[in-house]
Amino acid sequence: EFRRVLFRSLCSLNPTLSNQADKTFFKLSVGTEAPFALSKISAQMAKNITPRKEDYSKWYLDVIAAGQLADYAPVKGCMVIRPTGYAIWEAMQSRLDRMFKETGHVNASFPLLIPKHFMEREAEHVEGFSPECAVVTHGGGKELEEPLMIRPTSETVIGHMYSQWIQSYRDLPVLINQWCNVMRWEMRTRLFLRTSEFLWQEGHTAHETADEAQEETLRMLEIYRIFQEEYLAIPVITGLKSEAEKFPGALATYSIEAMMQDGKALQSGTSHNLGQNFAKAFEIDYLDRNNNRKFVWTTSWGVSTRMIGGLIMTHSDDDGLIIPPKIAPIQVVIVPIFNNDQERVQTFEFAEKISNSLNEKMDKLQIKIDTRDNLRPSDKFFHWIQQGVPVRVEVGPRDVKKQSAMVVRRDVREKSAVPLENISEHIVELLERIQDNLFQRALDYRQTNTRTATSYEEFKEIIADEGGFIFAHWDGSKEIEAKIKQETKATIRCLPLENRSETGKCMVTGKPSEQEALFAIAY
Amino acid sequence: EFRRVLFRSLCSLNPTLSNQADKTFFKLSVGTEAPFALSKISAQMAKNITPRKEDYSKWYLDVIAAGQLADYAPVKGCMVIRPTGYAIWEAMQSRLDRMFKETGHVNASFPLLIPKHFMEREAEHVEGFSPECAVVTHGGGKELEEPLMIRPTSETVIGHMYSQWIQSYRDLPVLINQWCNVMRWEMRTRLFLRTSEFLWQEGHTAHETADEAQEETLRMLEIYRIFQEEYLAIPVITGLKSEAEKFPGALATYSIEAMMQDGKALQSGTSHNLGQNFAKAFEIDYLDRNNNRKFVWTTSWGVSTRMIGGLIMTHSDDDGLIIPPKIAPIQVVIVPIFNNDQERVQTFEFAEKISNSLNEKMDKLQIKIDTRDNLRPSDKFFHWIQQGVPVRVEVGPRDVKKQSAMVVRRDVREKSAVPLENISEHIVELLERIQDNLFQRALDYRQTNTRTATSYEEFKEIIADEGGFIFAHWDGSKEIEAKIKQETKATIRCLPLENRSETGKCMVTGKPSEQEALFAIAY
Repeated sequence: EFRRVLFRSLCSLNPTLSNQADKTFFKLSVGTEAPFALSKISAQMAKNITPRKEDYSKWYLDVIAAGQLADYAPVKGCMVIRPTGYAIWEAMQSRLDRMFKETGHVNASFPLLIPKHFMEREAEHVEGFSPECAVVTHGGGKELEEPLMIRPTSETVIGHMYSQWIQSYRDLPVLINQWCNVMRWEMRTRLFLRTSEFLWQEGHTAHETADEAQEETLRMLEIYRIFQEEYLAIPVITGLKSEAEKFPGALATYSIEAMMQDGKALQSGTSHNLGQNFAKAFEIDYLDRNNNRKFVWTTSWGVSTRMIGGLIMTHSDDDGLIIPPKIAPIQVVIVPIFNNDQERVQTFEFAEKISNSLNEKMDKLQIKIDTRDNLRPSDKFFHWIQQGVPVRVEVGPRDVKKQSAMVVRRDVREKSAVPLENISEHIVELLERIQDNLFQRALDYRQTNTRTATSYEEFKEIIADEGGFIFAHWDGSKEIEAKIKQETKATIRCLPLENRSETGKCMVTGKPSEQEALFAIAY
Repeated sequence: EFRRVLFRSLCSLNPTLSNQADKTFFKLSVGTEAPFALSKISAQMAKNITPRKEDYSKWYLDVIAAGQLADYAPVKGCMVIRPTGYAIWEAMQSRLDRMFKETGHVNASFPLLIPKHFMEREAEHVEGFSPECAVVTHGGGKELEEPLMIRPTSETVIGHMYSQWIQSYRDLPVLINQWCNVMRWEMRTRLFLRTSEFLWQEGHTAHETADEAQEETLRMLEIYRIFQEEYLAIPVITGLKSEAEKFPGALATYSIEAMMQDGKALQSGTSHNLGQNFAKAFEIDYLDRNNNRKFVWTTSWGVSTRMIGGLIMTHSDDDGLIIPPKIAPIQVVIVPIFNNDQERVQTFEFAEKISNSLNEKMDKLQIKIDTRDNLRPSDKFFHWIQQGVPVRVEVGPRDVKKQSAMVVRRDVREKSAVPLENISEHIVELLERIQDNLFQRALDYRQTNTRTATSYEEFKEIIADEGGFIFAHWDGSKEIEAKIKQETKATIRCLPLENRSETGKCMVTGKPSEQEALFAIAY
């Protein structure tokens, strides 16, 4: 019944192989020592995952399938988030929700369906979103008098409610967030990154003054930056969107932009200063301190399940998912290794000891002991590697005798035998080191693959040969932005808030430019 | 700037008034001493709430409006759950979610839209739900090839996914829950109790054997019972639904039934044993331990935002909401009372002291200090009364001098001056007493208003004169169930699991009956 343990050979280190592979990995040159270490486990184990260098898109989908994170739903373009993927979303939600509440926001729930004429009250908004809407025409067996749109975002219906709730300056600010599903009909979909239905949060706030609205817009952008960098270990660039890329109906849109392992940009959070556009469209006015009727100033901001896609494409390797400890649903998995009932009891007890000492050392650590009887140890290791668990602890009968255990990092695959008395301290430190390492190697990668183009020729060469992020001057016109996009597929990701150079000349037209824009090919 | 404090007179006790009112309150006789104590605060304060004896339905909506719990949305029959109401839902979610996870369940997310032909694969299911569906016919600017239904519940699409995920007995049991919105087109709606869109959780599990599925069905029913009784302080009767009232597609439906203050029943949780109906319709089969292909056995179970309606109608009074401490988003509100800046500083400091001592005494207590400058104390009291906060602490300059504070219970309005050194202990005990009292008075109320009918004449008299719960024998036929419903509006709520009497004769036909059924007029 109990199978032979075959894992030692499978897990043996093979540094020669991995270093070789690393260096030729991407056409993008890589600066750090071991930025995306190849599997140290035998290559045959990861045959369910296409290597990144072979097909990055396929690799992405394979990592999701191997980690059992999500599936396509039977409705075109929609997804099912499986328990392992959803646990990541829950971890994101709980941390973000705390940050929202610490900055004075409260949650509420607004309706899924929006009357068609609501969408039409803000001109830019209807133009931007109507073509993407799913439309309900029948309900309760009858055709409806007015079609209803499944919310692609909720500015309109929330604006309508705010116009009823807000009467006086005493009612301001209103700082409400909602966690919900939204729908935008998409032709080309990709799990987590672009699906017709997705889960997100949308914050909607109303303020007395333009300054307060702008402050809120930047406050939430900063919360997104902190969340991405501190928890997801994803370095991001914050900046202002160009007119062409801003939210339909916004005065200004800010975003966070991250570089994926293939050099492409992923926008994974936006914060909009809506000015008085929606206030005027929905008549959200109030009596100010001098008893004058004024329109409020509103903002909206959101992040979605797309962040899970960003997490995968920033950290994972050819063996599958890697999750930073601060967001991992399981931080430590302990795998007992046994050949008979006696060893089973011994290793389980020892695993419990380690788990207890970890719990004492650090509050709220999520530890899993893999007690399954029907899998070989190597299959269990494989399973937890593909689920991206940051630290694995292996406990065999010899370990019990020596009162130590084998501790394995997921990120760089280092293995070390650690005595029981030090193990909780060792692992807690290791989790911090893994978190730091993941952020640092992503940052190094981004820095190595960020370039400046001084001419359009140079720009096109970089896009063709190397990709990544490119800083370049642009004259601020929609026409040139469109021309660059059409000719190179690169778009303006943002005008970074951390301004790199004051003025210059547009690389295409030579006209004056006030600051460099950040260009990239984007997801 | 600082207004005169006028609250003492407003808050003075007037026991004569309240006792008088209590006794003539409902036509239903009430057994406990002070079951639904009328406001001890001057009646003028609660003029935004219709008294229950005048119009119970209006009272219900007034409590919701006064507590700012919810609003109707601009789409017919849909609601907006406002922050105060949503905070109750979040408290319910977090406690239930923990109970689900402690019993081995995990969360996931399935799509909002369901292809029409999926709904048609289980005959009873399509008949039951199709007439209630909202239908999407257009997406991305085009008419769809096949209409999509907004999920009224997700057995079908989840069944489809399970058929792909489950291959072997090793994959079983599957224990998945989802928190989401669903839509059932309703003609007559009522905030929280019956709305076209509502929020809920739906658990969907798959098992190897019929016994395991039945165990799971009853386990989740029991979790709902514990949650309602321990956290919501709502006593419930658990039982089996009649064939006419069971879930379309289920083998057996179990429910929890509570009595509202008007004697009507509210079903606020159901757990279904689906047998192999959905397994066969969606071909969810697996290789068993002997390598034979078998269909799985499935269950589903859910509770919704309807529970908030039940919470309101069980505990609240003519002054508004009363929330049991264990589910209250805020357990203790501290209101500093001051006439000038010096008193402001003093009372705020003292409030902080009380808050700190409470936090030390009890982990995770939610305490709010009402620091608003622009409201009179009486308005603040009124606000917190209508939000149902279990304990209010009033801190005036004289209290600071005496190093004590006035502690007021929301449920029975007792007020007592408590010295600072005892205050945290006093309040923690008080919260427990309030929780117990709310449960006990609801239980007493139910027991007083539960009767047994031995003849159909008696049954009809009770329904006409007193209402409440009635136990009576019934021959088990759909025809008699329909006749009783048509003639009295009362329905069979359930066949209670705690069987009150073994056998008897149907009150209508005289045919043999195996057990008494629980009848009531229901929401």
